[in-house]
Amino acid sequence: MTLELYHSGLTSCSKKARLGLKEKGLAYKSHFIRLDKFEHHDPAYLKLNPNGLVPTLVHDGKVIIESGVINEYIDEVFPDKPLKPADAYGRAQMRIFCKMADEYGLPATRIPTWTRTKAEQIKSMPQAEFDKIVSETPLVDHRLKLEALKGEGFTKKEFDEAYGKMDYIFKRCETALAEGPYLAGDMYTLADIAMLPYIAAFKDVRPDLLKAHPHTNGWLERVMARPAVQATYLPSAETVPAGA
Amino acid sequence: MTLELYHSGLTSCSKKARLGLKEKGLAYKSHFIRLDKFEHHDPAYLKLNPNGLVPTLVHDGKVIIESGVINEYIDEVFPDKPLKPADAYGRAQMRIFCKMADEYGLPATRIPTWTRTKAEQIKSMPQAEFDKIVSETPLVDHRLKLEALKGEGFTKKEFDEAYGKMDYIFKRCETALAEGPYLAGDMYTLADIAMLPYIAAFKDVRPDLLKAHPHTNGWLERVMARPAVQATYLPSAETVPAGA
Repeated sequence: MTLELYHSGLTSCSKKARLGLKEKGLAYKSHFIRLDKFEHHDPAYLKLNPNGLVPTLVHDGKVIIESGVINEYIDEVFPDKPLKPADAYGRAQMRIFCKMADEYGLPATRIPTWTRTKAEQIKSMPQAEFDKIVSETPLVDHRLKLEALKGEGFTKKEFDEAYGKMDYIFKRCETALAEGPYLAGDMYTLADIAMLPYIAAFKDVRPDLLKAHPHTNGWLERVMARPAVQATYLPSAETVPAGA
Repeated sequence: MTLELYHSGLTSCSKKARLGLKEKGLAYKSHFIRLDKFEHHDPAYLKLNPNGLVPTLVHDGKVIIESGVINEYIDEVFPDKPLKPADAYGRAQMRIFCKMADEYGLPATRIPTWTRTKAEQIKSMPQAEFDKIVSETPLVDHRLKLEALKGEGFTKKEFDEAYGKMDYIFKRCETALAEGPYLAGDMYTLADIAMLPYIAAFKDVRPDLLKAHPHTNGWLERVMARPAVQATYLPSAETVPAGA
């Protein structure tokens, strides 16, 4: 049996998939994809992942994309140390938070994060190189984000939307975690794994939010202390390019 | 055992949940929520669905929101007439298309659909009433969309993004359906149920796309002919407000 994960270390969706595998105690071959060198646009990689995103899991030759789908898959294929509730209603509660992480957490994080990590590179890139990269980007929303960074940056409306989504996530997490101790109830699940990268990112962008939401703050401290989370979120040989 | 579904008839996510229940042959009590009267902002409804969206399922007192989550739930609780592949890899392929429907299909559809169905009402609404409705809208992206409709409408960039997402969905569906006959392979699954409202909507907005994607066109005709789809997508007593 072989598991191979293509990922980019400490980016949010890479952390989700890496953490899922580590919580399950599954060994995998790690392939670091350099986003700054646009290795995710390489034709060989696009054959695995037509979205041109990380992560991608290859399990005995079977290709699975999307971190949330990857985590549901590995939990179903490897039943030890389950990360989904045993009952359907618990799984539904879990999936509501997984969906919120994907649709609210990720886009909210991208606006400040891309501004911080990508804007300088994109802004200073020769136009011809930039045009080539845009033309090789499969997803239209990513093309538009690159064009925003090349121009005036993200608009006030885009930042307002991102911050509004952060507010809403904290509200919903706080309500769930007041009952808790985890997002889907008694059990640490894929919902916690899915939401963690965003709450951890918002901690830096919006420290006011964690102060105002003590149950979420307590959950963050509790979850961050898990050995698998430490192994995933702290820099390691796996989180830097080969040879770096 | 009781199943109750709060929905708004022929809107896309309502069709997803109604179709899931009908394919399973499950009877349910239908509650029509009038979006044009903002019944989804009613405090009693917001207790069931804090997003202020339709649909919401109540199964023996247990509340489940989000059409995709509802459909996974009913398929797990009622195992007859399965709508998920029996193997984990098949379920992963299914979930990739379910996610694409949620994250690409729905937002792409909303831009032209809200322009067609909501703009006139919002534009002519007294400012005080509009402000109240915005203040009662839980989701920030919906608040911003209402404000766009009250003002200049959606921007060219927003339409470009929506049309680009439609293009991409057709590309991905066509590749899958060339092998087919369904999006996740041999079996009609939640992926087909999830994608159907958007392909059906794009048929009107972008007839060029269906002509250019024959496998997707064939799939649409095949799926639309299913009795449960006919019962869901054609107007019926369930798709109009009570007393209308």
